[in-house]
Amino acid sequence: MTDVRRSIATVCLSGTLEDKLAAAARAGFDGIEVFEPDLIASSWAPAEIARRCADLGLSVDLYQPFRDLDSTDPDRFARNLRRAERKFDVMEQLGVDTVLVCSSVSDDAVADADRLAEQLAGAAARAGERGLRLAYEALAWGRHVSTWEASWDAVRRADSPALGLCIDSFHVLSRGGDPAGFAQVPADKFFFLQLADAPRLQMDVLQWSRHHRLFPGQGAFDLATFLRCLLGAGYTGPLSLEVFNDVFRQSDPWRTAVDAMRSLVWLEEALGAVWPAAGTTAPPPAPDLSGHSFVELGVDGVSGPQVGSALAALGFAHTGQHRSKPVQLWEQGTAKVLLNASVTRPAGAGVAAVAALGLESEDPGRSAARAEAVLAPILPRTRGANEADLSAVEAPDGTQIFFTRTGPEGWPADFLATGAAPADGGVRGIDHVGLTQPFDAFDEAGLFYRAVLGLEPHAVAEVAAPYGLIRTRSVTDTSRRVRLALSVSALRRGGWTPGVPDPQYVALATDDIVGTVTRMRAAGAPLLPLPANYADDLEARFDLPQGLLAAVREHGLMYEEDGEGGGYLHAATSVLGDRVFFEVVQRLRGYDGYGSTDLPVRMAAHRRARTPAPAPVA
Amino acid sequence: MTDVRRSIATVCLSGTLEDKLAAAARAGFDGIEVFEPDLIASSWAPAEIARRCADLGLSVDLYQPFRDLDSTDPDRFARNLRRAERKFDVMEQLGVDTVLVCSSVSDDAVADADRLAEQLAGAAARAGERGLRLAYEALAWGRHVSTWEASWDAVRRADSPALGLCIDSFHVLSRGGDPAGFAQVPADKFFFLQLADAPRLQMDVLQWSRHHRLFPGQGAFDLATFLRCLLGAGYTGPLSLEVFNDVFRQSDPWRTAVDAMRSLVWLEEALGAVWPAAGTTAPPPAPDLSGHSFVELGVDGVSGPQVGSALAALGFAHTGQHRSKPVQLWEQGTAKVLLNASVTRPAGAGVAAVAALGLESEDPGRSAARAEAVLAPILPRTRGANEADLSAVEAPDGTQIFFTRTGPEGWPADFLATGAAPADGGVRGIDHVGLTQPFDAFDEAGLFYRAVLGLEPHAVAEVAAPYGLIRTRSVTDTSRRVRLALSVSALRRGGWTPGVPDPQYVALATDDIVGTVTRMRAAGAPLLPLPANYADDLEARFDLPQGLLAAVREHGLMYEEDGEGGGYLHAATSVLGDRVFFEVVQRLRGYDGYGSTDLPVRMAAHRRARTPAPAPVA
Repeated sequence: MTDVRRSIATVCLSGTLEDKLAAAARAGFDGIEVFEPDLIASSWAPAEIARRCADLGLSVDLYQPFRDLDSTDPDRFARNLRRAERKFDVMEQLGVDTVLVCSSVSDDAVADADRLAEQLAGAAARAGERGLRLAYEALAWGRHVSTWEASWDAVRRADSPALGLCIDSFHVLSRGGDPAGFAQVPADKFFFLQLADAPRLQMDVLQWSRHHRLFPGQGAFDLATFLRCLLGAGYTGPLSLEVFNDVFRQSDPWRTAVDAMRSLVWLEEALGAVWPAAGTTAPPPAPDLSGHSFVELGVDGVSGPQVGSALAALGFAHTGQHRSKPVQLWEQGTAKVLLNASVTRPAGAGVAAVAALGLESEDPGRSAARAEAVLAPILPRTRGANEADLSAVEAPDGTQIFFTRTGPEGWPADFLATGAAPADGGVRGIDHVGLTQPFDAFDEAGLFYRAVLGLEPHAVAEVAAPYGLIRTRSVTDTSRRVRLALSVSALRRGGWTPGVPDPQYVALATDDIVGTVTRMRAAGAPLLPLPANYADDLEARFDLPQGLLAAVREHGLMYEEDGEGGGYLHAATSVLGDRVFFEVVQRLRGYDGYGSTDLPVRMAAHRRARTPAPAPVA
Repeated sequence: MTDVRRSIATVCLSGTLEDKLAAAARAGFDGIEVFEPDLIASSWAPAEIARRCADLGLSVDLYQPFRDLDSTDPDRFARNLRRAERKFDVMEQLGVDTVLVCSSVSDDAVADADRLAEQLAGAAARAGERGLRLAYEALAWGRHVSTWEASWDAVRRADSPALGLCIDSFHVLSRGGDPAGFAQVPADKFFFLQLADAPRLQMDVLQWSRHHRLFPGQGAFDLATFLRCLLGAGYTGPLSLEVFNDVFRQSDPWRTAVDAMRSLVWLEEALGAVWPAAGTTAPPPAPDLSGHSFVELGVDGVSGPQVGSALAALGFAHTGQHRSKPVQLWEQGTAKVLLNASVTRPAGAGVAAVAALGLESEDPGRSAARAEAVLAPILPRTRGANEADLSAVEAPDGTQIFFTRTGPEGWPADFLATGAAPADGGVRGIDHVGLTQPFDAFDEAGLFYRAVLGLEPHAVAEVAAPYGLIRTRSVTDTSRRVRLALSVSALRRGGWTPGVPDPQYVALATDDIVGTVTRMRAAGAPLLPLPANYADDLEARFDLPQGLLAAVREHGLMYEEDGEGGGYLHAATSVLGDRVFFEVVQRLRGYDGYGSTDLPVRMAAHRRARTPAPAPVA
């Protein structure tokens, strides 16, 4: 295995060429593909771009794209060749030797295989005279050439040293193409590789490609197999990302570039045995995560007492006080909730938010080392005398993730016992934590949890909620000891955002929700009342025992089935402070979801609790 | 023609049921369809909802949807009937007699036509016993029933008085269905009509339906013909809107409801001879608009002098001063630009924005009456002694639209002559005005200009710009004397918005762009420099005369062709104040566009002019 270079097409990133080059370099890319419109809009001449790239340590690996080269109309083909020559001029100044030539989508595209090969060879000859080469790529929606096999047929027939293939994972995998066939192609005919992932969508392939591509590890394609096939066939060029994505196009390019680099590191690791290439170091494997060790809520002087009394009513005991910080430890079963009153946001605003998650790692040091190797932002820690050294990284939504090892030497030792013993109110532990993601960070988050923590992202689902569509996606360990439920507004929210637009929650596991919630209500827990209409609908849809239905009506329980025999009972509290609530959840018969069909009812109820509806008509 | 009632499905509007009912009532709807999830999430019992609706003057016209009624599994069918009976309970309390039954999408859906009819008849019999009825609708993606003809076949076979059809324009027209066939169906079998428009999209029909429906007049469907066929076949129920749209789902429901009502008024008018129904009054027809009489820019103490000196350099003369307001009139050719210094936004911020457009109407009074009839917000006017009475409405982006009649008695008489004569610097008049729309208002704007002003909205196009995708759409009169170029960010902008995120511009027409721009540059106009790379690309792509290419390079001209022989030469100025610039444009050989392919180059250049790029490498 030779050295492998990591590249990125400038079209992946938002901004002008200047922004893109700086971001790609800072994220550690070795090279770039110059997307032609970025060059055209730049005030830097091609030679100046080349100098800038050299200064930034970036090679220019590809110029792209050249469209609609071949033509059934000889005059037009002649004009196309003239146009190509002008682009060869640009390439020479830019110092790049390879141009991506897309299969034609034009009405005058050449259907005859030999004539097409002849035209490609003609163009390649002109390129070859100038020391340049053409990488021919089958667009999935090409007029006559739409599979990589068809592009290889054309390249084979043309038989020109300056003509080879550009293989784009999207164009191959979106059409269900088989990368195993790469082995039949001579290695030196693979001129370039473009990598993109994508979700499985039922839509026009061109629209799918132009709007919904993702970085490797964020979508549904098996890119590890794909890449293994291409490397196995002898490809030695850069691993280069080419992702058209509506969100990335308008997001901070510095951040997108890091996300992109993380996707390559993750993909290289997923290659397994054929990796690491010379000159790279594999990240340490992600240690097993065995559970949620704590959830830390940031609170202020207004919300702190409110959350504390809610915890007490939910059956938690205030068992510890941090040695050096204004942090309380509350416990029930194995659930540990920290209330950190050092929030510095506007005083008295009633801020309550998930500040940090503690995840129990079999090797916290290795978890931190891995996180760093896959480009997670590592957080500086102030550590008091006698305090555990907790490594923490920052998740895309700003939540701090601590890798803990609970025990005599571990983090709980930082807390001085209050003397109160953990109560048993029916809560067994933390089931999951629900985190609303910033609009731009949803796909980034799926890959972050996958690459940094070794968790598995599950399918994205969409829910029609009162104030707009919401996308949800869970990430879990394989044995479901760590579960995070991520959600995001399908469109970035605007001015009309009644209620609590981005709530977070901590879901507490119980094996007896009716008993647990009954105790909680008796203790004055701020459980969220749900409408009778909801219970009526449950009664119409499911064969629930009358006793359970009565409890649903009395306690505001929610119920969902998964269509595979599983069921989920859950109840929510009011929103505490500005954005946090608790859920109590009971999983039945192997249910593996998060009650997302109940999200609209819960959101409407949360809004009512904040903004009471008008009084009934007399 | 009997009285016709206008209804709206609650799913069209954002918010909780409470928000939706209030918004529908205020916009003047007669009735609603209750979308079941809205009822389920409401704290109002069905009878309470009925009372609320009665108080608001809304009838409940439909309960919807009931899904997956039929089943090949007898036990499941029995359970489905039981579920239906529970929903009939809700309907009785809600005071609604019709429920929408969708064709099944389930694996166990009944394929056999007679068995399906038998099951539908069985359910209808139960409904009929309670005085209720089922409106059966073919979902375009139904498992066995996916066309309205198939749904009619089932209803015909079932032959039950409590079973009829619900016709949904989306489901019919998305599949290319022919509404002419409605004439073959007995009138009393049309129980309900749901209206939705949509853009033509190449995508999975379910996704198209769930995310991209539009109100009538906003999309590509021929709803007038559709509705004429259904009314001709004897349908007498409500005209009811059912629109699933990602943007409307999260936009202010008060505003969406008005947009929805406008779409029905527009559609009814488009019916022509069969309209108006008894009890309705047709809006006065839109008077001919014969041109842009003026563009008014709101400026402040900082931007006013800057815009004034730019206008002077562009060849305008300051010809008039308003009698009572701090407004200057600048003229060149027929182009009139007003600078209104009464902007009250933060002093000294350099505000410069299009405040108003004057459109020359053959009958300003009738234009205003029509605007009011189609629910445009009418603006109050303060009118000085001896001043023209100008009627104005507010467009969705806040721009004021004045209907003018230029002449001795018209608006220019409000200005006292300065003595300066209009110069002739080569500008003939105003070609068009470019208005960036608020994210939520793009589809609303297309219908607004169509319904209020009688302009024609053209196809939506998408451009990949440096900071994200941009959608563009023009609205024009048929003879192109009034042109507006609307644009919007394809996703709502977030924190990463370098440059000027929402610029507006005034495009000035010339018949000799090279001469005109040469004079402007000599006079010191702030023309925007464009990169040499752009001119190099033009040279590669087009057969432009060398003289023109030299002018392109010297003056920063942009050039686009339309593929039909037409061409467009244009040049932009820097952004003046915070968001306005001018263009100078020359249309060649019947070109009818707005140079949108040049948008990325122009945007990047505008950003450079604001935030200079780093100095070249030495």
